[in-house]
This record gives sequence, structure tokens and C-alpha cells, in this order.
Amino acid sequence: MLYHVRMYVRLPPDLDPADRADIIAREMAYSQKLQREGKWPQLWRIAGEYANFSILDVAGHDELHTLLSGLPLFPYMDIEVTPLAAHPSKIAV
Amino acid sequence: MLYHVRMYVRLPPDLDPADRADIIAREMAYSQKLQREGKWPQLWRIAGEYANFSILDVAGHDELHTLLSGLPLFPYMDIEVTPLAAHPSKIAV
Amino acid sequence: MLYHVRMYVRLPPDLDPADRADIIAREMAYSQKLQREGKWPQLWRIAGEYANFSILDVAGHDELHTLLSGLPLFPYMDIEVTPLAAHPSKIAV
Amino acid sequence: MLYHVRMYVRLPPDLDPADRADIIAREMAYSQKLQREGKWPQLWRIAGEYANFSILDVAGHDELHTLLSGLPLFPYMDIEVTPLAAHPSKIAV
Amino acid sequence: MLYHVRMYVRLPPDLDPADRADIIAREMAYSQKLQREGKWPQLWRIAGEYANFSILDVAGHDELHTLLSGLPLFPYMDIEVTPLAAHPSKIAV
Amino acid sequence: MLYHVRMYVRLPPDLDPADRADIIAREMAYSQKLQREGKWPQLWRIAGEYANFSILDVAGHDELHTLLSGLPLFPYMDIEVTPLAAHPSKIAV
Amino acid sequence: MLYHVRMYVRLPPDLDPADRADIIAREMAYSQKLQREGKWPQLWRIAGEYANFSILDVAGHDELHTLLSGLPLFPYMDIEVTPLAAHPSKIAV
Amino acid sequence: MLYHVRMYVRLPPDLDPADRADIIAREMAYSQKLQREGKWPQLWRIAGEYANFSILDVAGHDELHTLLSGLPLFPYMDIEVTPLAAHPSKIAV
Amino acid sequence: MLYHVRMYVRLPPDLDPADRADIIAREMAYSQKLQREGKWPQLWRIAGEYANFSILDVAGHDELHTLLSGLPLFPYMDIEVTPLAAHPSKIAV
Amino acid sequence: MLYHVRMYVRLPPDLDPADRADIIAREMAYSQKLQREGKWPQLWRIAGEYANFSILDVAGHDELHTLLSGLPLFPYMDIEVTPLAAHPSKIAV
Repeated sequence: MLYHVRMYVRLPPDLDPADRADIIAREMAYSQKLQREGKWPQLWRIAGEYANFSILDVAGHDELHTLLSGLPLFPYMDIEVTPLAAHPSKIAV
Repeated sequence: MLYHVRMYVRLPPDLDPADRADIIAREMAYSQKLQREGKWPQLWRIAGEYANFSILDVAGHDELHTLLSGLPLFPYMDIEVTPLAAHPSKIAV
Repeated sequence: MLYHVRMYVRLPPDLDPADRADIIAREMAYSQKLQREGKWPQLWRIAGEYANFSILDVAGHDELHTLLSGLPLFPYMDIEVTPLAAHPSKIAV
Repeated sequence: MLYHVRMYVRLPPDLDPADRADIIAREMAYSQKLQREGKWPQLWRIAGEYANFSILDVAGHDELHTLLSGLPLFPYMDIEVTPLAAHPSKIAV
Repeated sequence: MLYHVRMYVRLPPDLDPADRADIIAREMAYSQKLQREGKWPQLWRIAGEYANFSILDVAGHDELHTLLSGLPLFPYMDIEVTPLAAHPSKIAV
Repeated sequence: MLYHVRMYVRLPPDLDPADRADIIAREMAYSQKLQREGKWPQLWRIAGEYANFSILDVAGHDELHTLLSGLPLFPYMDIEVTPLAAHPSKIAV
Repeated sequence: MLYHVRMYVRLPPDLDPADRADIIAREMAYSQKLQREGKWPQLWRIAGEYANFSILDVAGHDELHTLLSGLPLFPYMDIEVTPLAAHPSKIAV
Repeated sequence: MLYHVRMYVRLPPDLDPADRADIIAREMAYSQKLQREGKWPQLWRIAGEYANFSILDVAGHDELHTLLSGLPLFPYMDIEVTPLAAHPSKIAV
Repeated sequence: MLYHVRMYVRLPPDLDPADRADIIAREMAYSQKLQREGKWPQLWRIAGEYANFSILDVAGHDELHTLLSGLPLFPYMDIEVTPLAAHPSKIAV
Repeated sequence: MLYHVRMYVRLPPDLDPADRADIIAREMAYSQKLQREGKWPQLWRIAGEYANFSILDVAGHDELHTLLSGLPLFPYMDIEVTPLAAHPSKIAV
């Protein structure tokens, strides 16, 4: 089941640099694990912002919430979720 | 070059049904031609709305505008364009 | 799978009264059929507005979109969909 | 009398972890007591956000305010209240 | 039970003058009947706008919705309802 | 002269409890003095929020500003003022 | 008593040109009469918009509403009223 | 004196095609005359929208308003004006 | 050249009282110097808010920015600037 | 490829003055290097705000993001990016 997710990160500028590096490293590892499992098939940076558009492919709302609320950056994020349905004009690939 | 596009359609409810069917048929043909050319690689319906999220893959801003402004439904759409950059956490597929 | 849906209706005040009565009757029949099937378990009027909050219980995003876009009042509605997950504080009933 | 309530929590990321655990434990106990009393019949997590949609069933506005302003997380919440009326299309259950 | 209501009227400028006079006369009669019954104890014009702030005093959400949706101007109004609780600093009068 | 005022309070959750109690006590005394003088004839809690709707009855804009900016909670408030005119449908009481 | 007023005009582009000329002529006469009476001491065009900022100097809220709701363009306007108090830094002129 | 202007065009989809072609031709001629006079030095299409960002270079606010309100598309436009000052980091060209 | 300016002040409530008094004293002196020079001809308090509406009369955008960014309270302000043109209905004084 | 960028700076008022001077000096050097390379051809101060409108001319979205996210002030900025296409009315210079 596909979800469109917009994640916007607001890290405080005065965060300790080591803490900052640590949280970003953990975020990357967490994201890449989900990508390798096929649960985060699309991930783009929004040009000019500390933000991304993502497509998540999970079993349902509960798994989606578990994955998103487990993001190391979750306490610093504004997140918008949009459920995606099939579009009638989409051609088979 | 990738662009994230949100298209929201506002067709007047009192549009003539034949005109409505015609414009929607032309929209589908236009979209599918671009999909077959590889310029509209992703297209999802936003669940519950007459709207879609799309990814367009074109040479640049001018081609993007030409394609979008040529949509048969363009006069009835609100469109938001977001340029997409590579995300540092994205794994190679 | 549960979805929270806010539906806001904007019927033009100068709609023909017979057309208006007809569309509202069809809307009620459509809604009650889904309620009887267990797919629309909650439905409340927002006090003072021509709007409702609803809970829909369907197989996934595609079925949700099919049901909502089939509403007789769909062309006159603004709709907001929110996917609902289990809350950790919820007690079993 | 039914009220639809949206609660959005903004806990500061640098809150002391013990204080955080304590306030969340008290919030859960408070919520579950009200659920057992039948005053908080519905509670859903908004997928991807630290937020919930709730239905409260209380005697009136004063009791509603007393319950909400007593939430341990109240000082960290944005709350929106919507009074719910019976919907004419609702079938008897 | 007290409700704060903001009503904003959007009558189309090209409405037939006789229709306009009729709907406004019916609105006034409807409002004054409710005032005499004690259900609409406060009514103020928002200076410079075709809008009002009102206090309604009714048995609950269902009666509130019945009264508001019966306003002759209801199809032309945007309405915001806010339930009012007792304020701890209020002195007895 | 009547003014409709919406006051929304944002006290920092980590305010010293004694300071908090002190400022709230001074706010209550200040408000009740104005109520007894007839300058703050209406005061309601907005259910579920740390906010109120008030009606102030003062000589004019300057007195209004003096009273509001003297509120002990003023530095923590967002305030919206709306001047109220007589409504043509209002019946004499 | 001074009021700051923002008036924004939305005349339909397809209004009959003679009707349009007539309403604008009546608006100008109405405005200039109030200016000569000293009740509309300031009037500026917002550069690039069909809108103005105005200062009105009237006895109170009721007179303000009477004057504004009598504007020939009132049915086509969005109006925002802000009551103005004396500023402590203002020097005597 | 430089002004940043955002112009957003909302032509009704059911405008007569000949009227539409005529107004767009007049708009282009008007714009190009001002460009040749050096008063409209920059003009870009916002990709995907019927809108533009422009830089106008005129003597002051009155000339700006005269030019903008004379645009053939002015009755169909939403316009936002921002006055531009020299930036301290700008290098001489 | 006239500019309409809305200044909204957000001084942190926990600012040191001596620092607060100092910055406010410097703001008043700065403002009154500009008023005496004829560059700040109008200044009103927005009733109920720590905010003002001002009219500035300066040579152009650069001088405007220099004056506003030099305000002692500038780091604590939200500022909105609107260039003002002559209104065709304004009578000569 | 041209991008319109709005940068809005929110430096905390209590930032250490030496740190503030340092970051602003580095921002200016960074901006001027890009200007000399032809990648930042336009830069204007928004009058009255700590903000700018810029035109960037880079190879594509990835270079744009690299340049913007490398700004010394990036952690303190809100940034809006708009891709610019050629306008059909633009005359050759």
C-alpha cells in the first residue's frame, strides 16, 4: 500500500555538532535499511530545503506509523501523509 | 531532471457531460503519450480527491512548462511544481 | 483499514430544487448502503455546517477512492482524508 | 453529548527523558480512566504524526473543558474542538 | 448550553432585489423569534462586514444545528461554531 | 462602546510554578476589578483551549488598549479585537 | 475615533461597462462627500491592486458600519477594520 | 526604482476564444512596449502556472500603479508588489 | 514617496527588564527623530496588540530599508511594507 | 537554468555578536564568490525585511541544492524555490 510522505526537518542551529552528526548518521542507516527492505522505494530531496518527498510501501496505516515515528529525526520533523490510489490514466510498465 | 507536480482539478459540476467526457478522454491520451515517452514516470491519484501527485522527467523548466500548459485540463487545474534533487541517503537500485 | 474523512458540501444556492432534492436523496441511499455493509461505521454532522466527519473502514486506498469519488455529491465536495493507526493508549472494548 | 477533538502534541525534543516518560505514563493512565468511564469512546493515532483524533462523550462544554485541560500533556498540546450533531443519513445500529 | 457563532454572509451582488429583500425579511423574523424565545441572547454586527457574532443558548448540538441550518440565509453563509465553557475568573452578576 | 476580544494564552510549560501561580492570580484580580466596574461584561472560556472570548465595554480605542496592554498575561497573549456595531435584527430586551 | 480600513474590490470582469462606470462614479461621489465632511481623512491606493488603505474618523462603531455598508461598491468588497489607539512615541504636530 | 511583481492570471475557461486571443495579443503588445522602454527589464514564466515574476523599473509608486492597472489582463489578475532595495552583498557588474 | 508599514513586535517575556527598558527608550528616540524630520508622518497603535501602523515618507526603497533595519526593535519585529499610490477619489486638502 | 529563490533569515536576537558578525561575513564572501562565477546573477533586498529575492543560474536541481544548503546562513533560513521558464512575451535584449 503506497503512501506519499513529505518530511520537513527543523534541527535547532545550536544543536551540539556531535549530537547532530550522530542523529543524522542514525537517520541515514534507518532509512537505508527500509529502502533495502523495499518499504521506502522513493526518496527525493526538495531542492533548497531541509526536506524530502518520499513514497513508502507498507502493509497499512499501523506499519506506516511505526516506521515514521521510529525515525531518529522524528522529534524534529513536520510530516504530512497522503494515501495514494491507482490513477486511471496510469499505463502498465 | 525530475519535478514533483501536484495537480488539482476543479471541473465545474454543471459542465456539459459530453464536453466533460471529451476533455477527460483527451487528458488521458495526452498523459499516456508522455508516460510512453518516459517523461511522466510516476502518476498517483490522491485518495478521495480529484487530484494527483506526479513525477515528470524532462530536460528542464521550459519543457516542463510546455508539457503542463498543454494539458487539456490545464485551464481547470491548480498546479504546484517542486524541483527534486538527489537525496544523500538514497541507495542505488 | 480505518480512514478519517471530512466532507464539506458546497451546493450552489441557485441549484434547481428538484435537482437538489434528487441528488440529496441519492446521496442518502448511497451512504446508507455503505453503512449497512459496514464500510462507513461512523457519520456525524459538524454542528452549524453543511459538512460531516466520517470514519470509513475499507480494504485500502483504492477502495476508499472508489467509494468517495462515487458519492453523488462528490463534484460539490471538499474532502480531506487522514489514515488512522491504532493508538497505544486505547483500551480494548 | 459528542465532541470531535483533534489533539496535536509538541513535546520539546530536549525534554529530560525521565520527565518525558513520566508525563506520557500519566497521560496514558488519565486517558484510560476516561475510556473506562465511557467518556472517551474513540481514540485514533493520526498516522505519521504525534497527534490523535478523539471522540468525547460528556455532559456538556464545562465537563469537556475540565477533562481536556486536565490532560497531563495539555500544556504541550494544540487542541481543536468540534461539536457533533446527529446526521440525517445515519442508520440505526 | 452556550455557543459562540460567527456568521458571514455572501449574498451574490446580482441577486434579484425582490428575492434579496424577501430573504432578508425572513431572516430577521426567524432571528427575532429565536431571540424572543431566549435562544439567541446576543447578536452583534461586525463593524464594516456583512457578518455577525452571536451567542446561542440551546439544549445541545442537535438543537444548535437545527436552528442554524434553518436560517433563511444559511445557504449563503460561512459559519464557525465554538462551544463556550464557564471561565474561572467570571464574577457572579 | 463594545469590542469583541479573543485572547489566546501561551504560557511556557517550563515557567516556574510559583511565577505561574502569581501571574494567574494577578490576572484574575485584574479581570474581576474590570468586571465589577462594568468594563468587561462578558467572559467565556473557549472549551478545550487556554483562551477566552470577551466583550469589553469602554469609552473608546485608547481605553481599550490601556486595559488590554495592562493585563498581567499580556506578554503571553495573542489578541484579536473586533469592534461591534448594533445589529438591525436585534430586539430590545 | 480613528479606524484603519483596508478595502479590496472584486468587480466581476464581465460587468456591463455602463453599470461599472455608474457604480464607480457613485463610489467616488460618496467617498468625496465623506472626505469633505472630515470623516475620511486619509485614502491611498495600494500600488498594483484594486484596493485601498483608508483612515476613517467617526463617532464610533455604529457610524463606521453605516458609512462602510453604504459604499456603492460594498457588495463587491472585502473589508478589514482595525481600531487605532494613540501611540506613546507619537510626537505632537 | 525597482519593484518585484508576481502576476497570477485567472482567465475563465469558458471565455470566448476570440475574446481570449484578443486580450492575450493586447497584453503581449502592452508588455513588449514597456520592455522596449526599459520599464519592464525582467519577465519570467513561473513553470507550470499561468503566472509570472517580473521586475519593473519605474519612477515611483504612482507610475507603477498606472502601468499595472493598465494591463489588459489586470481584471483577471492577482498581483503582489514588493519594493526592492540594494543588497549589501551585491557585487558591481 | 509614501509607504504603509505594519510593525509587529515580539519581545521575549523573559527579557531582562533593564534591557527591555533600554531598547524601548532607544526605539522611542529613534522614532521621534524621524518624525521630527518629517519621514514618519503617521504612527498609530493597533488597539490591543503590541503593533503599529505607520506611514513613512522617504526618497525611495533604499532609504526605507535603511530606516526600518535601523530600528532598535528590528530584530524582534515582523514588518510588512506596502507602497502607496495616489487614489483617484482623493480630494485636495 | 534559472531559479527564483526567496530567502528569509531568522537570526536569533540573542546570538553572540561575534558569532553573528562571523556568519554574516562568511555569507557575504560565499554569495560574492557565486556572483563572480555567474551563478547568482540577481540579488535584491526585500525592503523592510531581513530577506532577499535572488535569481540563480545553475546546471540543475542538484547544483542548486548544493549551493543553497552550503549557505552559512542556511540553518537560519526559510527558502522558497521557483523554477523559471521563458516567457512568450519576453523580447530579445
